[in-house]
This record gives sequence, structure tokens and C-alpha cells, in this order.
Amino acid sequence: MTEIRLLGICGSLRKASHNMTLLKTAQQLLPTGVSLEIADLTEVPFFNADFSAKPTAVIALLEAMQQADGFVFACPEYNYSIAPALKNALDWASREPENHLLAGKAAAIMGAGGGMGTSRAQYHLRQVGVYLDLHFVNKPEVFVNAFSGVFAPDGTIQDDKIRATIQAQLVALQALVTRCKK
Amino acid sequence: MTEIRLLGICGSLRKASHNMTLLKTAQQLLPTGVSLEIADLTEVPFFNADFSAKPTAVIALLEAMQQADGFVFACPEYNYSIAPALKNALDWASREPENHLLAGKAAAIMGAGGGMGTSRAQYHLRQVGVYLDLHFVNKPEVFVNAFSGVFAPDGTIQDDKIRATIQAQLVALQALVTRCKK
Amino acid sequence: MTEIRLLGICGSLRKASHNMTLLKTAQQLLPTGVSLEIADLTEVPFFNADFSAKPTAVIALLEAMQQADGFVFACPEYNYSIAPALKNALDWASREPENHLLAGKAAAIMGAGGGMGTSRAQYHLRQVGVYLDLHFVNKPEVFVNAFSGVFAPDGTIQDDKIRATIQAQLVALQALVTRCKK
Amino acid sequence: MTEIRLLGICGSLRKASHNMTLLKTAQQLLPTGVSLEIADLTEVPFFNADFSAKPTAVIALLEAMQQADGFVFACPEYNYSIAPALKNALDWASREPENHLLAGKAAAIMGAGGGMGTSRAQYHLRQVGVYLDLHFVNKPEVFVNAFSGVFAPDGTIQDDKIRATIQAQLVALQALVTRCKK
Repeated sequence: MTEIRLLGICGSLRKASHNMTLLKTAQQLLPTGVSLEIADLTEVPFFNADFSAKPTAVIALLEAMQQADGFVFACPEYNYSIAPALKNALDWASREPENHLLAGKAAAIMGAGGGMGTSRAQYHLRQVGVYLDLHFVNKPEVFVNAFSGVFAPDGTIQDDKIRATIQAQLVALQALVTRCKK
Repeated sequence: MTEIRLLGICGSLRKASHNMTLLKTAQQLLPTGVSLEIADLTEVPFFNADFSAKPTAVIALLEAMQQADGFVFACPEYNYSIAPALKNALDWASREPENHLLAGKAAAIMGAGGGMGTSRAQYHLRQVGVYLDLHFVNKPEVFVNAFSGVFAPDGTIQDDKIRATIQAQLVALQALVTRCKK
Repeated sequence: MTEIRLLGICGSLRKASHNMTLLKTAQQLLPTGVSLEIADLTEVPFFNADFSAKPTAVIALLEAMQQADGFVFACPEYNYSIAPALKNALDWASREPENHLLAGKAAAIMGAGGGMGTSRAQYHLRQVGVYLDLHFVNKPEVFVNAFSGVFAPDGTIQDDKIRATIQAQLVALQALVTRCKK
Repeated sequence: MTEIRLLGICGSLRKASHNMTLLKTAQQLLPTGVSLEIADLTEVPFFNADFSAKPTAVIALLEAMQQADGFVFACPEYNYSIAPALKNALDWASREPENHLLAGKAAAIMGAGGGMGTSRAQYHLRQVGVYLDLHFVNKPEVFVNAFSGVFAPDGTIQDDKIRATIQAQLVALQALVTRCKK
């Protein structure tokens, strides 16, 4: 079976982030033949064309992106749009000479937030993906209401329905990665 | 005449930013009775709910927002959406107890970028404004193609048409601020 | 007290439309001094620049728009965007010489649909309003889940919370109309 | 070589539509093994769940969609969003039992309009495609300024650069259809 390497990128920098929990839950639910590494954005600075050399954390991020066959974005919603840390990670990857790191690859989006489960931010992220030439999983979309009690006190997700949706999205992503690699 | 205080916020952190030039040009074209201060985002970190105390640069930003009657956003477009530094400045202002700093105030958007003049990012910013309860100037929109030669070698804008559009937008913003203050 | 005339426009043409029910509910909850007429779109054809003369139903629609001080859009969501009948009504009003009928006026949006209450369509409608120069109420947004049992068997809305939200939106619209008329 | 059948759908009903010209130009530039039929929307009424039986024009449209392997949408921009006739064609195809007619298929978007070449409408159309489970070509995007003289007096497009972009998009669509069919 073809090994597929996924990179998870989480837009929240908070230690107890619900969106990071989504990625960790995804790591428990991977289809056979699929791995999921999670990027570390804590030291990635705001993109700025004035940088004379790439910071170490950016070099590590870009290296992880290069090795990935596909992406899982954990997408919080801040003020009806994308969290800056997530957008910024993508912005670093879109500049010469790294602008081919994402092109043509597959991606999935999951998010935990208010009642609409970060949907507003997710549609903005999909528009970003047009420029980056990413191919997104359409269905299932993963919208988690973080205030509905689905996150257990220890920070994990025990809710069977959400776990099943995450798993189904990962299966769809596996299939899309396979198609995009051909 | 009522004095109106505007705060300019620029999404690009680059020293020779074209979008910052838009704000500086706006400062030259202000209607009588209107002032425009420009916020300094260079030291504002990514928002993170784990911060135990607000960084100094954030305190200064929030203070400037509180004093402002209206806003001028210089909105670059990175990958078809908003520059993280601009979005992040707004995210800091949207959390308790500062979430009233922007509510009900007026704002205008101008942007310099590729052929579409950052329009894609500007519509995302308008959606952010729904949550923040900002009231945007609808017309004129300011879309500047940064690659069309309108920026002089010294970084200034000499193009009469663009200057006139910026001026007209500031007049419209002045009127909208006045209406929103009532 | 200044009389304010609102025009309601519903994107669903279905006889038992839940979105039309929202408008009829709004008619029961109007602030003092505010009236709400509902436009009839059943005979309005697709806009087409080839029409040599405006159809009768279009003339009536444009006349009602002209007399209105503000608008209430009942906005269904079809396939994550605006219902064609609602968009088409606005398209007819945006062409010369009628393109001033909406400009500078205030509007509110309410919608009944799936779990997200037509939010995706509503943000598209807000972008349409930028071109039309409409000023939208930001808060409260009215998102009604039509499948949650809030519509009584006779088609009315009895849910107190939704009725209160509609009422609050109408009060906000009244205030915005008043500001826009100055 | 695998035969690929494309269906073109044009959002403008105007006889001399520039967007229809884009589709006719595409018909001249098809890769080997690809055909492009153009749907007739002139008699397709607004979708309405009250219809007891599908109108003849709708039946023909749905039949053409079923036979298509992929789609080319000619997307005008009316008031910063999608033309109702195009959106309505998709809405008819999204209801039971036809809601599988589009799912999993590939599509490309081209548009002729004002200075931004209908980009605002195209991003809304891409959001519609998430629900419909369409997979869009990301690059190249086709944005044609209809007022720049590229349409010859006889309604054809002679501009070499635009023709080359349309051709490149069709090649990309051919590849995407092939991937989606696997």
C-alpha cells in the first residue's frame, strides 16, 4: 500500500487548543498507510519580505511541507475569518522559491469553534487554496461546536459522531491525495 | 467643525510597503477637521489566549483604537486573503474587555497589490467587519495595481486619479463617521 | 415620529416558504412608526439586457423599491449561496436608470434553512450590497434552523427567542434607516 | 484516447452575450478527444419546490448534465456575485433525485465582465461547488475584461493571450476530468 504522509497545521497557538485536539484525534483515526505529523508554528514569525534569511522555524515548516503529500488544516475562526497563525504559515510557503511546495497537493479542513463550527473561516481558507493550487476534500466538512460539550475535561473528543466524521474525512483525503499524485 | 480622529492600520510590515504608502498619501489628502494617525504593528505578537498580560505594543494599539472615531485599513492581499498582521490587530481588539473598541465605528479600506488591487482580501475584511460591527464605506473602493508604475521611485503616489479616489474615499469616510457617531 | 417604510423581499417562491414566514413574522413585530410591505416576485423574469421594455411585475417591484426607506431580505440558502429569485430582484434594480433606487439605503437580512441558518448565503448577499451601496445591520444576525421545530404546523413561528431576535433586528434597522436618511 | 464530454453553462441569457462567446471560443480550442456542448437555459424557470413535474427545459438540462464528464461555466458578474440563470441551473441539479449528477465531477470557470473579469462572482461559484461536490481547475483562471476591446465587432475573441489562456484551462480541465473519473 502506498504510504501517504500528511502534515497537520493548526491555526491556534493556545496550549489547550480545541483545534489542536482535532488534529490529535485525527492521528488516532488514520487509515492504514497514512501518517500525520503536526507542524510547530510557535516560533514562526509574521511573513515580511524584508527578512534577509529565513528563520529556523520557517525552514523547518517549509521542509515539512515539502515532504507532505497532503495537508490537514485545523482552522479556528477568529472574527468570521482565518486565524493569522494558519494564514501566515501558508503565506511563507507561497513565495519564491518555495511556491511549489503546496501546488497540486490535496488538503482537508476541520475546525472547532462557535455554533457554526468555523465554517466562515473555512470558506475563506478554501479561497486561499485556489491561489496555492490546493485541492480540497469537499465532503464531509468537519464543523465542531466547541461549546457543546464534545470536548471531554481531559481535552479529548469522545463523541462518536464527530470521530466518525473525522475518520470519513481522512478516508476522503487519502483518496484525493492518491488521485492528485497521479 | 467636528474633529474626527482616524486610525490607519497597515497589513504589511515591510519597510517600503506600498500599502503603507497609501496611508501616508491619505495623510496628505485629509478633509478639514480630520486627522489620521498610523498604528505601529511591528511588535504586536500573534494573539493567543494564553497571554497572562497584554504586551506593551498591544496596549498601545488598543489605546489608539479606543481614541479613534474611525479606521482606514491598508489591506494587502496575500494568497487571495487578508495579511495576517492586519487580521491579528483586529483579533486583539475583539476580545473581552476590549470588544467594544471597534463596535459601531466607521471604516474604509484601501489596498495596493496585483491586478485586482487586493479586492479579494478586501471582501474578506468586510466579512470580518460584520462580526466586529464596523460600518464600511461602500464607494469609492480603492484598488491600486502596485505593478502599474503608479508608485514613484521614491515610494510616493503621484497618479492624479488614484489620489482623487483616495481623497473621495476619505470624504465618504468623514461623512460615515459623522453618521455613526450620532 | 418619522414613518419608515420597509420593503421585504423573499428569495423563495414556494407558497409555504419558511423565509416568507420570517417576513410575515416581522410584520407582527414592527416598532412603532415602521411599516413593512412584501414584494411579489412571482412574475419577475430573469434579468436580460435584451428586454425592450420592462415587464409589468418588474415595474411594480422597482416602484416599491423606490418608495422604500429600507429593506428586509428573507434569504434562503441554495447550495451555499443566494437564491436566484432574490439575487435577480436586486439585479433588475441595479441597471440604469434605476440604479439609484437602493443606493445609500439600509437593509437587514434574515434567513431560515439548514443548521447554519443560511449564513453562507447571507455573506454573499452582503457582498452584493457593497456594489449596490446598501448599509446592512450587523447585529443581531437572524439565522433560523428550519428543521429544529421552530415553525409551527400552521407555518407560524412561535419560538420566543427567534421572535425576540427578529424584533431586535427590526429595531436596529429602524435606527440604521434613520441614520442613513440624514 | 478517452473521449471526454464537457457541458458548457452560460449565466447570461442575452443573445450577444460575451460570456457565451467565451464558450464558443472554447469550442474552437478543445484538446483532442474533448467535446463541448452548450446547455440552453432560455426556458429554464426559477427553481421552486412547488413544481409538480419538471418543465421540459429542465429535463433536457439535467439529461445533459448527466451525460457530461465535466463542466465549463461561463460566469458573468452581476452586482459582485453570480448571475441568477447560472445559479438556478445548478440549483435544479442539486435536488433529489438528481443530486448525484454533478457530484465528483470536474469543472472550470471563465468569465467576461468589468475590470476584474468577474472574479468576485467566480469565487462565489467556487463556494457553491463545495456543496455540489465539484472539483474546480485552480489555474489558469480566466478573467476577461469585456471593455478592453478584446471582443471583435463580430463578437468573436481574436486576442491571442486570452485564447491561449482559455486553451490552457481546457487542457487543465481535461486532466482534472481524467483524474476525477478514476
